[in-house]
Amino acid sequence: MTFQDISALDAIDPLASKKSEFALPSDSIYLDGNSLGALPKTAKIRATEVVELQWGQDLIKSWNTHQWIDLPLKVGEKIAPLIGAASGQVICCDSISVNLFKLLCSALTLQTGRSVVLSQKDNFPTDLYMVQGLAELLGQQHCELNVFAGECIEDALNNDVAVLLLTQVNFRTGYLHDMQKMTELAHQHGILVIWDLAHSAGALPIELDKCEVDFAVGCGYKYLNGGPGAPAFVYVAARHQVAVKQPLSGWMGHANPFQFLPEYEAAAGMQRFLCGTPPILSMSVLDASLEVFNGVDMQVVRDKSCKLAQLWMTLIAQADLTNELTLISPLCDDERGSQVAYTHPSAFAICQALIARNIICDFRAPDVLRVGFTPLYTSYTDIWHAVENLQDIVQKESYRDAKYNQFSKVT
Amino acid sequence: MTFQDISALDAIDPLASKKSEFALPSDSIYLDGNSLGALPKTAKIRATEVVELQWGQDLIKSWNTHQWIDLPLKVGEKIAPLIGAASGQVICCDSISVNLFKLLCSALTLQTGRSVVLSQKDNFPTDLYMVQGLAELLGQQHCELNVFAGECIEDALNNDVAVLLLTQVNFRTGYLHDMQKMTELAHQHGILVIWDLAHSAGALPIELDKCEVDFAVGCGYKYLNGGPGAPAFVYVAARHQVAVKQPLSGWMGHANPFQFLPEYEAAAGMQRFLCGTPPILSMSVLDASLEVFNGVDMQVVRDKSCKLAQLWMTLIAQADLTNELTLISPLCDDERGSQVAYTHPSAFAICQALIARNIICDFRAPDVLRVGFTPLYTSYTDIWHAVENLQDIVQKESYRDAKYNQFSKVT
Repeated sequence: MTFQDISALDAIDPLASKKSEFALPSDSIYLDGNSLGALPKTAKIRATEVVELQWGQDLIKSWNTHQWIDLPLKVGEKIAPLIGAASGQVICCDSISVNLFKLLCSALTLQTGRSVVLSQKDNFPTDLYMVQGLAELLGQQHCELNVFAGECIEDALNNDVAVLLLTQVNFRTGYLHDMQKMTELAHQHGILVIWDLAHSAGALPIELDKCEVDFAVGCGYKYLNGGPGAPAFVYVAARHQVAVKQPLSGWMGHANPFQFLPEYEAAAGMQRFLCGTPPILSMSVLDASLEVFNGVDMQVVRDKSCKLAQLWMTLIAQADLTNELTLISPLCDDERGSQVAYTHPSAFAICQALIARNIICDFRAPDVLRVGFTPLYTSYTDIWHAVENLQDIVQKESYRDAKYNQFSKVT
Repeated sequence: MTFQDISALDAIDPLASKKSEFALPSDSIYLDGNSLGALPKTAKIRATEVVELQWGQDLIKSWNTHQWIDLPLKVGEKIAPLIGAASGQVICCDSISVNLFKLLCSALTLQTGRSVVLSQKDNFPTDLYMVQGLAELLGQQHCELNVFAGECIEDALNNDVAVLLLTQVNFRTGYLHDMQKMTELAHQHGILVIWDLAHSAGALPIELDKCEVDFAVGCGYKYLNGGPGAPAFVYVAARHQVAVKQPLSGWMGHANPFQFLPEYEAAAGMQRFLCGTPPILSMSVLDASLEVFNGVDMQVVRDKSCKLAQLWMTLIAQADLTNELTLISPLCDDERGSQVAYTHPSAFAICQALIARNIICDFRAPDVLRVGFTPLYTSYTDIWHAVENLQDIVQKESYRDAKYNQFSKVT
């Protein structure tokens, strides 16, 4: 493929105009939206508005006049159509980790006589850590983490398992689970399922309701572009909402928070999943960021994501890099999220060398180079330029320069 | 006292120049900094910087180049001197509610054979709700909430109590506990103490280390001016840090979060109190807001706070309002935080009528009118104007107008 072929793909890209809705650096190619989404222009405007006008001028009145109090539900409702959830099942709050704790407790409460939480060894670590923390608090008889290696979940499912906790897209490899199949298999054993959508929400079509998913959490700062550490979200299927209890029963989850009553009474619906006062600045910015999805068909996003990944892999082969870089992502579109990853003994240094050329991708310990595709602002020619630079760095071994081997706190 | 007398107080106020460091509305008198602090100009600048430059231009690199990863500890260290804590004992994260859960679990783990958490019936409800949530999760044999009415804590302390959970300044009445005395009394019974500093941090001198406090939480968005829903903070005395465990063991609390290991290992020191990814936009703004405390002596803040409250009460008496409004705050400075509160059958409507005249104070259900003093930006003449308007509203009964009786979601 030539640069001309690739430019032609951009010319007919139905999402091409979306890039102008982001305030991207002009000198960089950003292939790390799977870690931190880019800044939507709407978010920039809202940040100024919420700080200078709402907080600065209207101060405490803004809880009513600018509906700060409604933000968690409002943002939840904006996320809902992106993940195939009907109204009343999604709320924005806290972090994925904190929200997993709420859902693990909720799910275990519904499962009498079962205590096993089943997950994958290579799940994103916080998912495992939150189960470990709960298990230590409650004791193994009430919560026990079992992890299996690899993708063969079927063999690990049995009637002792209370909860199956899976991340839909693996953070390292990009492996994409079949949500419908896994949820169905789990339900056949009476197992409740919690899906972590950190690397899938906003990247591909998700059908939580259709798949009869029980619970889900997801991230505001990756493909939803909500800004660094943006609040997370929680999904609870309507059928579970009355029965569930979650122990982080802060005042914002109370049926009547402004009555200031000494006894907790859980609010109806998703509001009971709130805990403390939400970070309004961060949540307002996420609210505004979600506007870039207005009128966007997630299937169109997915189609472009797959094409970007295929182009990447084609160009890697064309650049004769397939022996240098070991692909750890699935080749088949149906099994891959919106990223590709490779192992290389010098993955860290290669990543740094790319960043030095303003090609921004990331490294995951111990030896993974990860490249993310965000169809709203990644172009086909971005891929061309990125591979061209990668080829130069790898084949000339310029990554061996000592300056690319200085580890920092976040690597 | 005359307006001239009061203007003279402003003329010699050592904190008078601080007001210019805030972007306050020019047409309002803001007496609700105890609920939401005003916008520091440094925060406004930082908000633009963190959104447009750090996120927008430097994107994922900002975790290192702008030290996002260090923010929780950095902000904690900035708060530490305001609450009498030596270095290494404070971290900024999550909400007060979530942090209370961490500390309750931490404290109960240290107390073998004791399960009672003692608190006050009129504590801020979220403090009670978090104990109730934990008690329901663990069972009464592991965690049991006992509440006592009134301020006579001494009678309720005994060797069955594991944890004493007190808010230093009561959110309604402004009653100020004697932290040193209460902590000492609790320790005499082997009780660990958690102080909630929501209504005291940034308002008055606090001596956590000197009082040998075990644990504390506090709020970023009241007297610390960190913006709506700013992240909270946690204090753990150095002597407890090695032994404590907290169950919200998210990846940011791991000893090596970027190693992505499947087993949780708590970080050394305060970092183990982190859970998920922090809301960087909100936390950066809080970080910048704290700069207004540079060079500020908390005793000077406290002196002015007491003078503002005394002036308020003097003017209320002078305006012949003491029979109309029932003071529920202590008269004595030593027993009062930085607010005064009154009950009145029409407290809500009076509050709305004041707000309609741009005198911003707040209402707490069922019948409390609450007025907060924030010495960094409240002037003595502000108090004069506020009481003058309050007098007019109460004595002419203009608050009886139907428009002042429309309740909103947040009241």
